[in-house]
Amino acid sequence: MAYLRDCWYPAAWFDEVDEAPFARTLLDEPIVIFRAPDGAAVALADRCCHRSLPLSMGRVEGGELQCGYHGLTFDRTGACTAVPGQSNIPPGAGVRAYPVIERWGWIWLWMGEPSGADPAEVPDFHWLDDPAWVGGTGRLHLAANYQNIIDNLTDHTHLQFVHQRTLGSSDVSDATVESKRIGDDLQIERWLINQPPPPLYAGSGGMSGNVDRWMNCRLSPAANFVLDIGCAPTGTGAPQGDRNRGIELKSLHVLSPENVGSTHYFWGFVRNFATKDTALTAQIDAEAKATFEEDVVVLEAQQRVIDESSGASTIDRQADAPPLLARRIMRDLIDRERRAS
Amino acid sequence: MAYLRDCWYPAAWFDEVDEAPFARTLLDEPIVIFRAPDGAAVALADRCCHRSLPLSMGRVEGGELQCGYHGLTFDRTGACTAVPGQSNIPPGAGVRAYPVIERWGWIWLWMGEPSGADPAEVPDFHWLDDPAWVGGTGRLHLAANYQNIIDNLTDHTHLQFVHQRTLGSSDVSDATVESKRIGDDLQIERWLINQPPPPLYAGSGGMSGNVDRWMNCRLSPAANFVLDIGCAPTGTGAPQGDRNRGIELKSLHVLSPENVGSTHYFWGFVRNFATKDTALTAQIDAEAKATFEEDVVVLEAQQRVIDESSGASTIDRQADAPPLLARRIMRDLIDRERRAS
Amino acid sequence: MAYLRDCWYPAAWFDEVDEAPFARTLLDEPIVIFRAPDGAAVALADRCCHRSLPLSMGRVEGGELQCGYHGLTFDRTGACTAVPGQSNIPPGAGVRAYPVIERWGWIWLWMGEPSGADPAEVPDFHWLDDPAWVGGTGRLHLAANYQNIIDNLTDHTHLQFVHQRTLGSSDVSDATVESKRIGDDLQIERWLINQPPPPLYAGSGGMSGNVDRWMNCRLSPAANFVLDIGCAPTGTGAPQGDRNRGIELKSLHVLSPENVGSTHYFWGFVRNFATKDTALTAQIDAEAKATFEEDVVVLEAQQRVIDESSGASTIDRQADAPPLLARRIMRDLIDRERRAS
Repeated sequence: MAYLRDCWYPAAWFDEVDEAPFARTLLDEPIVIFRAPDGAAVALADRCCHRSLPLSMGRVEGGELQCGYHGLTFDRTGACTAVPGQSNIPPGAGVRAYPVIERWGWIWLWMGEPSGADPAEVPDFHWLDDPAWVGGTGRLHLAANYQNIIDNLTDHTHLQFVHQRTLGSSDVSDATVESKRIGDDLQIERWLINQPPPPLYAGSGGMSGNVDRWMNCRLSPAANFVLDIGCAPTGTGAPQGDRNRGIELKSLHVLSPENVGSTHYFWGFVRNFATKDTALTAQIDAEAKATFEEDVVVLEAQQRVIDESSGASTIDRQADAPPLLARRIMRDLIDRERRAS
Repeated sequence: MAYLRDCWYPAAWFDEVDEAPFARTLLDEPIVIFRAPDGAAVALADRCCHRSLPLSMGRVEGGELQCGYHGLTFDRTGACTAVPGQSNIPPGAGVRAYPVIERWGWIWLWMGEPSGADPAEVPDFHWLDDPAWVGGTGRLHLAANYQNIIDNLTDHTHLQFVHQRTLGSSDVSDATVESKRIGDDLQIERWLINQPPPPLYAGSGGMSGNVDRWMNCRLSPAANFVLDIGCAPTGTGAPQGDRNRGIELKSLHVLSPENVGSTHYFWGFVRNFATKDTALTAQIDAEAKATFEEDVVVLEAQQRVIDESSGASTIDRQADAPPLLARRIMRDLIDRERRAS
Repeated sequence: MAYLRDCWYPAAWFDEVDEAPFARTLLDEPIVIFRAPDGAAVALADRCCHRSLPLSMGRVEGGELQCGYHGLTFDRTGACTAVPGQSNIPPGAGVRAYPVIERWGWIWLWMGEPSGADPAEVPDFHWLDDPAWVGGTGRLHLAANYQNIIDNLTDHTHLQFVHQRTLGSSDVSDATVESKRIGDDLQIERWLINQPPPPLYAGSGGMSGNVDRWMNCRLSPAANFVLDIGCAPTGTGAPQGDRNRGIELKSLHVLSPENVGSTHYFWGFVRNFATKDTALTAQIDAEAKATFEEDVVVLEAQQRVIDESSGASTIDRQADAPPLLARRIMRDLIDRERRAS
């Protein structure tokens, strides 16, 4: 399967990785991650170049990873630094090293040519780091292709069918939707103007009168999805860009394909109001997890049918415009990478 | 794999299906079955034409099936009647509908071109409906190709090896066997003339003197098998067709291939004597199930070997004439269908 | 996968097989083994030539194996001797019989053309039969290709990485290693001259002064591996071939490929000193099993990576010379068989 490679993918949360080797597969590539003595995360191909043992079965000593079979040792660049029993290093010895950035709580790996890795291209998820924002985070492993998950994220019309029990019959479906391509991003804007606030906004959010509500999505390649939701009292200028009087939530979703049929799904759900209310945090977190479980059931069933009926035709609806645009952007970017290489 | 398609296959017993969507695969095709408000069973392809979710994960409302992902709705003809969020139906929206007949306790589906579906072609299993006949019924799911099960049904010589513990050393093996093709049916006749009755016939059957016994099989396409057994006092004309003084049992077996290596097996075992004797019914039922379990072990082991040794040669015996004839008829019918299409 | 076929492979320990049919797969071939009334082991292809049921589901009567489906019966040559219901035997009826030799506790099968089977070619493992030698034996089923296990056996440099906890930091790695091809065998010799004896040799072995130690391997086709270890007081001529004053252990390993990714592994570990010391036997046995478990973890993980990364390149070390020589010999022998056939 073709993946977009010249971009950063999160491989793990900070606290999943310590000095012990940790195995995770991204884009069909088994990778071993560990922390060097200076605390920096190191990511290498998880296969010894000698006899193919997973390096994640080895051990880290002095910031280098020693294979658990014959002791070949690799530094953080993937270079082989020692072959026990001989003084020279055989030509070709070494494993691929992946550029690593740790940011916003995630260990990001650059899956393309290392020379192209630019730390400035790590997508912005600063809300996960900013004390003005509080909430929960998590990780899922889904037996579903990442593109089908993007379909799910970029099309809110599934809410009333998949999430009847959790999100209920949302009035979101009445909102005006506008989706457009901005560079390589997909932007979807939905506004409800001059409406009574829903319970969360009226209660914890302290909104007593009518509000202007927004539910905006931004998808950046490969699969960085920010759902920006909130409201402000009507007439305070939110639609024009002034959110000073508003309250906001960010529902953050980042996907790292494991392989064609499975995906690592990293998420956070944070807000900038009622930030001391730990009961509210726990409640939102529980609701988010219940909602995810409903999506998981659907996405994994869909994947099984797709696997068994490959090539069967499908039809599209008008509401598929945003996910279809997301797929077109992804195809464009993968094609661009192919032509460049 | 090539299946015979222009025929009725049972998909389920009446009581397996109610208004909730029910999933079953026949001839490699996932199918969803449910009952409309008028009680009629409806059978549709179990894959939404939009994003491939199994429709059996959806819900039935007003006799229509609504997909559990985005709410596309299908009527009993498979036509798409609603796409939430838009007023028109996209061209090509719809799923395959299977002609359905409910008869003899089974929900039969026509797996060929719907225009060819003729209710008159549903095979006769009226004994399951007729109060003059009593007995037990059941369903098995076997990890075995249906044709190997037909081999098993049409060749009684396995009884003394597979069913030693249950059916014992049957005197059936001494019976005269005659098998012939009648149209597209296979008819196998076995008679034992002027013999003492076996215990069941002498006891519950009330046969005190010598009897003429018959054990006749009829296999009709695709896989409808009636074992017609019984006896009458010798000299009362049973061999000539007069069963007035006789007692009869019908062992009924119908197979619906799930895929090349697995089969839905529907059965009934009924009699027209000692019909009030519920203890006898329970005993015959228990014996039938024990016998089936012996066949399941053999048929599933055989399938595993066939899967692992594909193409390995086999030899035939004289006693294989009936099953070989059954296979030849099936090949003829499948070829005929191919040429016709 | 190509295997060396013209050789004897152990299929089972004596005590695994009695008169009941016993199933085991060697070189991708399912085989059924049983004992005839005279006690001789018989090995036949485990698939009835009639309808493919595993013959291991049948029963042995009078030294012949009767299929559990229709009763076809096979003698120890694989010839079909009875087809119930008919007096003649159909042409082609019969199954492959494998030449069998029972020796050293193992049931050996000749996997090539039967005419080539020479009992004199059964490898020598007389230590398992000789009361002067005592110790433990066992069998493992590994999800690993046999050639990778031979790599493991013929390269001692993995000891300090895989067996740190069990064998400890062995001084063996300092030994002089010499490997060479002798006919179709691989011989690896390692000597430590005039050294203090390790604890086992000093204690149970009764060696008080310095010793000359040897650790020699011999690999004979296909996969018969003898590790010959021991020591003698320095100056008593062991390096020149006189072991009269020495003590010896034999670590015996024989592999029978099940298929490309799994192997039956038969082993024995015996010694010719302190033979009455049952506590020592139990201790050595427990250590051997703990050591095997460490190898199993590595070999099965390696196999999984190889399966998932087929074709990925590898590099070799100087210490790989013996296993590479073992692989070259195996390739030569398989090529030779191919040309001959």
